Amino acid sequence: MDKNQPIGFIDSGVGGLTVVKEALKQLPNENIIYLGDTARCPYGPRPAEQVIAFTWEMTRFLLNKNIKMLVIACNTATAVALEEIKKTLSIPVIGVILPGSRAAIKATHTNQIGVIGTEGTIKSASYERVLQEKSPKAKILSLACPKFVPIVESNQFQTSVAKKIVAESLRYFEKQPVDTLILGCTHYPILRPLIQNVMGSKVKLIDSGAETVGEVSTLLDYFQMANTTLTTERSMTFYTTGSTKMFDQIAKEWLKENTISSKHIALGEEKS
Amino acid sequence: MDKNQPIGFIDSGVGGLTVVKEALKQLPNENIIYLGDTARCPYGPRPAEQVIAFTWEMTRFLLNKNIKMLVIACNTATAVALEEIKKTLSIPVIGVILPGSRAAIKATHTNQIGVIGTEGTIKSASYERVLQEKSPKAKILSLACPKFVPIVESNQFQTSVAKKIVAESLRYFEKQPVDTLILGCTHYPILRPLIQNVMGSKVKLIDSGAETVGEVSTLLDYFQMANTTLTTERSMTFYTTGSTKMFDQIAKEWLKENTISSKHIALGEEKS
Repeated sequence: MDKNQPIGFIDSGVGGLTVVKEALKQLPNENIIYLGDTARCPYGPRPAEQVIAFTWEMTRFLLNKNIKMLVIACNTATAVALEEIKKTLSIPVIGVILPGSRAAIKATHTNQIGVIGTEGTIKSASYERVLQEKSPKAKILSLACPKFVPIVESNQFQTSVAKKIVAESLRYFEKQPVDTLILGCTHYPILRPLIQNVMGSKVKLIDSGAETVGEVSTLLDYFQMANTTLTTERSMTFYTTGSTKMFDQIAKEWLKENTISSKHIALGEEKS
Repeated sequence: MDKNQPIGFIDSGVGGLTVVKEALKQLPNENIIYLGDTARCPYGPRPAEQVIAFTWEMTRFLLNKNIKMLVIACNTATAVALEEIKKTLSIPVIGVILPGSRAAIKATHTNQIGVIGTEGTIKSASYERVLQEKSPKAKILSLACPKFVPIVESNQFQTSVAKKIVAESLRYFEKQPVDTLILGCTHYPILRPLIQNVMGSKVKLIDSGAETVGEVSTLLDYFQMANTTLTTERSMTFYTTGSTKMFDQIAKEWLKENTISSKHIALGEEKS
């Protein structure tokens, strides 16, 4: 293993960029490679078997780029594919559900924890299972918000339409208050101001992706894989299966990096 | 490995109880065993070789109690002994300096990070090294606070003497402002209200021990060692090389557990 090898991040689209944003801050010495399967986004409504297959395709692409660690920066993919991929690969593989759950248990005082995510994530009941296992006292309130990902991917997250959809979707929590809400989809931190506004300033929002980067750092240190020898600027490489223009627009704004220029690639059937 | 095996925590005295307090919250299914070397506390002013020898004595004691993971819940011991012990043991070993450093980098906005600790910890420059390595932009301001541990160990942490000592010790930061302060000694969270009061409410205090428990949880999951089968109440066992009466008094108050009854043991020369 060469410590200069990049860390790989995969997501159904641009959501994993919220994880990369944290990596830019918390892991300034690490080279980064990102793949967003924008062309087939959202993953949320797709059957588990298909999400697993797509996640494997992304994984194989990044393995060919010689990554030293894989971050499944997508809750839907983590819910159904993490275990299998972790078991198969020889490099460390980390998902976003355990880190988010851990942070929620640390943050809650009332033990009333909310989880919002895609249909796929909520249907998998992964958060419930992990949270209940780790904190038997916790009461978990889960809600699928299928409209959130399309708002983000279409770059409409600052519109009044977005505001209205977020308010309507989260009405569920009005009568079932929580003190901690897990943003169980890496796209959701982009909607954070809208979500915080609806939930109220006292509700602690957990960014599962940001928490994941902390755990990436933990594992890099534990396995002595952290890059401490970076002498030049870190490298960042972005791939998307969709429109590079839309991807770059969101990535530049979100990461506050002007030089991002993603490359288009094809995965799966498209490829042949 | 049996998942019911306890996690071992060692400290120079009662400081590691701040780590155990977090473990009670974040890891409710885990059995816990604790050893505080109260008779030889503080470790801070001792030479590194002696701290290493004492830490090994504590480690051996807990290995005989069949622990599945070791937490060096003492910054002074982590600074000088973690690397050697981690290399030697076959179970996972975790210290408190990396987790505290990681949390500080995540929290800071100004990149001005303060660290307070014992003489031993500050002299070792472990935090500086780790922080600088992980975040080359950070400016680190370190301060030894040798009077803090004796205040806590003698159960005087709620007195006006404590208040005065804390205010005088932290005067250093008046002219060198930081936005994040690492409590680089597991005894210090017991003085947290006093420290926060002197530093001002805007300074983010990082509890290295609390952060460590998050990383313990990460590694338990990563290595599939987390206890998910606990059917009865978790067990907690406390050992001290000093006065059990004083230990129990502090432990009961700090952990809000009425049933703590520590056992006295001897280590090192005392033992023979």
